Amino acid sequence: LAADPPQSPQVGHKLTVAYLGTGYSGWQIQPGKNTVQAQLERALEKIWTQKISAQSSGRTDTGVHALGQTVSFTAPRRYTPSVLVRALNANLPEDIRVLKARLMPPEFHARFEAKGKTYEYHLLNHAVGDPFLLDRAWHVPQWLDDKAMRQAARLFLGKHDFASFTSNPGYERETTVRTVKTSKLTVQGDMMMYTVTADGFLYRMVRNLVGALVRVGLGKMTVEQCAKILQAQSRSIGPATAPAHGLYLVKVFY
Amino acid sequence: LAADPPQSPQVGHKLTVAYLGTGYSGWQIQPGKNTVQAQLERALEKIWTQKISAQSSGRTDTGVHALGQTVSFTAPRRYTPSVLVRALNANLPEDIRVLKARLMPPEFHARFEAKGKTYEYHLLNHAVGDPFLLDRAWHVPQWLDDKAMRQAARLFLGKHDFASFTSNPGYERETTVRTVKTSKLTVQGDMMMYTVTADGFLYRMVRNLVGALVRVGLGKMTVEQCAKILQAQSRSIGPATAPAHGLYLVKVFY
Repeated sequence: LAADPPQSPQVGHKLTVAYLGTGYSGWQIQPGKNTVQAQLERALEKIWTQKISAQSSGRTDTGVHALGQTVSFTAPRRYTPSVLVRALNANLPEDIRVLKARLMPPEFHARFEAKGKTYEYHLLNHAVGDPFLLDRAWHVPQWLDDKAMRQAARLFLGKHDFASFTSNPGYERETTVRTVKTSKLTVQGDMMMYTVTADGFLYRMVRNLVGALVRVGLGKMTVEQCAKILQAQSRSIGPATAPAHGLYLVKVFY
Repeated sequence: LAADPPQSPQVGHKLTVAYLGTGYSGWQIQPGKNTVQAQLERALEKIWTQKISAQSSGRTDTGVHALGQTVSFTAPRRYTPSVLVRALNANLPEDIRVLKARLMPPEFHARFEAKGKTYEYHLLNHAVGDPFLLDRAWHVPQWLDDKAMRQAARLFLGKHDFASFTSNPGYERETTVRTVKTSKLTVQGDMMMYTVTADGFLYRMVRNLVGALVRVGLGKMTVEQCAKILQAQSRSIGPATAPAHGLYLVKVFY
């Protein structure tokens, strides 16, 4: 009897991917929807001529953007990273770009091994709005008190139970405790940018934090009330979720 | 016989308008096409409940953007400028925004009285591209020699016959002589911005100037050859037109 041909050894691959979330129903494959994962797996299949499943560091919702999403997959080693970047981009729509590729041990997994992430949330605080920031920043026409928002942003620093800031507690695995290392608001003209780094994020956590910050900025909630919401560890008193289109996944740490 | 009711006196109006050109077949009304002028006149008609025709400082082509287009129209004086800005924006799609309104003498005309304009052209000089600059900058993946481009940009300064840089000489009224006051390239990381101010622009002039600059940047044409094209005053030897989606009308001078 002839032995099976030896299989090519599988190699881990790590991609850094940017995408404009506007045209996509988020990261994860869903039947009948255009998703980033579906586009990436289609491009991988064209290159390797076999089905390859790709994992990201985490799902992004419909309309959420990525400046530096991390994607992992295993496949036979066939391409140098720079060639792979070119081949993938040639097979991807232009609103998804692979910025970098790297070979990894086969057990590398973009989600399980992520040590932390940085997100940005972009706000446009301007009476009229800006055609060039549609789908890219949350337009808040009323004046926002950035000083109060900065104070509220500092509340989130450190290790806390963020149960008040997850939209779907049932969805979480075990704990709703996360450690936030950066939580700051920067202002440039009419633009406000909220940057948050943590060891992990609950479902819709950043958008819920921003929802709270904007309520504080509008004067509809005090910084003290915001602190009480955090302490309550209960989503039922949490403020409304900020829209998806202002959110950017910036970087994943390993 | 009853006399006609006295007509309300007509007042001139000047609007400063920004738009994302991506969704529009340019400024000018065309049957069956979505244009910026059509959207603005529809909004004006809703507010005044009568047909009002709006003139801009000049047509912009399909896909060309405006940061500060000027629009004029006459109508009975009914609204203070700030109220008019709000009412127009409430009736316009979000990718067209009226930034300012001003009352003017009734004879004010955005095109006939324009003394000059500033355009910007945005280039992305990066191997991979950027999902967030699709439709907003011309992506040139090959390395561009910005030093040579700066030299070429200086050739256009001053009073010249720009016949080599208009796409449709028959379309021009009398003279193809224009005076360029600013013609400079600035570089910020991977972004290149070409800024040009003149007393007027020929049809597709900025995109043709940029087409020449990029050929110089790619090393396919020398600065001296570029100077000869300008001197030739003949479109037949002019370089290819740069794409529309990198072009921004920034300001109109009166």
